[in-house]
Amino acid sequence: MEIKSENRCFGGVQGVYSHASEACGCDMTFGLFLPEMAKDMEVPVLWYLSGLTCTHENAMTKAGAQAWAAEAGVALVFPDTSPRGEGVADDEAYDLGKGAGFYVNATEAPWAPHFRMWDYVAEELPALIGQEFSLDMERQAITGHSMGGHGALTLAMGLPGRFRSVSAFAPITNPTQSDWGRKQLGAYLGADESKWAAHDASLLMREKGFDGPVLIDQGGSDQFLHLLKPEALAEAMAAKRQAGSFRTQPGYDHSYFFVSTFMEEHVAFHAEALYA
Amino acid sequence: MEIKSENRCFGGVQGVYSHASEACGCDMTFGLFLPEMAKDMEVPVLWYLSGLTCTHENAMTKAGAQAWAAEAGVALVFPDTSPRGEGVADDEAYDLGKGAGFYVNATEAPWAPHFRMWDYVAEELPALIGQEFSLDMERQAITGHSMGGHGALTLAMGLPGRFRSVSAFAPITNPTQSDWGRKQLGAYLGADESKWAAHDASLLMREKGFDGPVLIDQGGSDQFLHLLKPEALAEAMAAKRQAGSFRTQPGYDHSYFFVSTFMEEHVAFHAEALYA
Repeated sequence: MEIKSENRCFGGVQGVYSHASEACGCDMTFGLFLPEMAKDMEVPVLWYLSGLTCTHENAMTKAGAQAWAAEAGVALVFPDTSPRGEGVADDEAYDLGKGAGFYVNATEAPWAPHFRMWDYVAEELPALIGQEFSLDMERQAITGHSMGGHGALTLAMGLPGRFRSVSAFAPITNPTQSDWGRKQLGAYLGADESKWAAHDASLLMREKGFDGPVLIDQGGSDQFLHLLKPEALAEAMAAKRQAGSFRTQPGYDHSYFFVSTFMEEHVAFHAEALYA
Repeated sequence: MEIKSENRCFGGVQGVYSHASEACGCDMTFGLFLPEMAKDMEVPVLWYLSGLTCTHENAMTKAGAQAWAAEAGVALVFPDTSPRGEGVADDEAYDLGKGAGFYVNATEAPWAPHFRMWDYVAEELPALIGQEFSLDMERQAITGHSMGGHGALTLAMGLPGRFRSVSAFAPITNPTQSDWGRKQLGAYLGADESKWAAHDASLLMREKGFDGPVLIDQGGSDQFLHLLKPEALAEAMAAKRQAGSFRTQPGYDHSYFFVSTFMEEHVAFHAEALYA
């Protein structure tokens, strides 16, 4: 693991690190914020998964999460959203290929060799950071924005017992029924739609739910509402009697101005579960 | 108007009053809590509509709302749930007739002469309390439980501009599709289902929404989930991009132990809108 940068931040350290990823078959970069409290003890971890076109850096610089994580004594991990590098397949569209990994393990050409973001976030990166930093990997929570909200929800429900709480900002909730999803799941997983279901938060919610609290914030003036389909997840949560809140925040759009506005409440929500 | 009782309560007065109701064609009784602050100024009003089998008294004694209303400087009104008295039609079932007015104006025999709870709560009682008490009727909000949650939501959306905020505890959300609704709307309004739509919160939400914040709490272990159908309202709120929160509270049932647990947050929610 290589240290790309480390900056003092709210009494702790905001670092950027790279490593050779076996899952993705390329070098991967991630951000990690370690609060001051980690000097004295292993701290719990909150994963933040980013949206389309993002790298590890967007949320690290724009979400304003470190202030609240420092206060709560929670580490933040900011993975990249896809494999990177010259040998990695890509597409001209912003929503397929690099920057658009969708947190799945691709089985189809040309994506299968590198696009294994599920394994990367679920297995390889947790093992690495648990080894390298002062983290209590028994206490993890997960959140994300847009495609990253999709990732957070599908990982949380797909890995029962792993995360104590899950939240999302304007998540893609029903990708099997959306142009943000059908194209990508088809490309990465193939035409057999039965293989897509494990990557659809609304289907997972209806079928399995999540064994812990769920918090969803959705901007009421989000320009991508027709792609995000928040009503699918809201209905599924209520039908499943899922512990949690689905909130529509009027006037907010899809940007990090929205995410940063509600970040304090999301970090506090996770901290309550992580320190319960 | 006759004073049935007045008790000092959290520095204010919890009163019970009766009056000859023109809307209902009978004497009606209601509870009203006036916080101490009302001595010096007109205070805003929070309506609390009760559920099946209740009178004005249940919430007044079991919901624990006065503590928070006193702190917030908000009056509470507790109407009865139906007309009362010997000349008033009734049914042997607990969910039709007395104690089950469903907040509609009945048009069908034998209910039409007295069962006009919509007019009573929307017109007659506000006029009376606005005249008799130190209340600012320009600042009203509304909540309720179960059938009363249905009433709160349908009145709030049916009277645009009247209420600044609306909340509900375990409301009947979709009575046109539930055994808590089809029987009663059929009896009170007749077989023409097009007349029922104005009394279905999920249909109103999808069509009109509410011009203010909405807060819904639903117990996850509510014994009446199949009748309340919370998923219909949750989906409609999200689809309408309605400002507000839909929350499922795990383990809570349909009782006042549930209502009282979350009453502080509901009163604070309304106070924020009423004192904005």
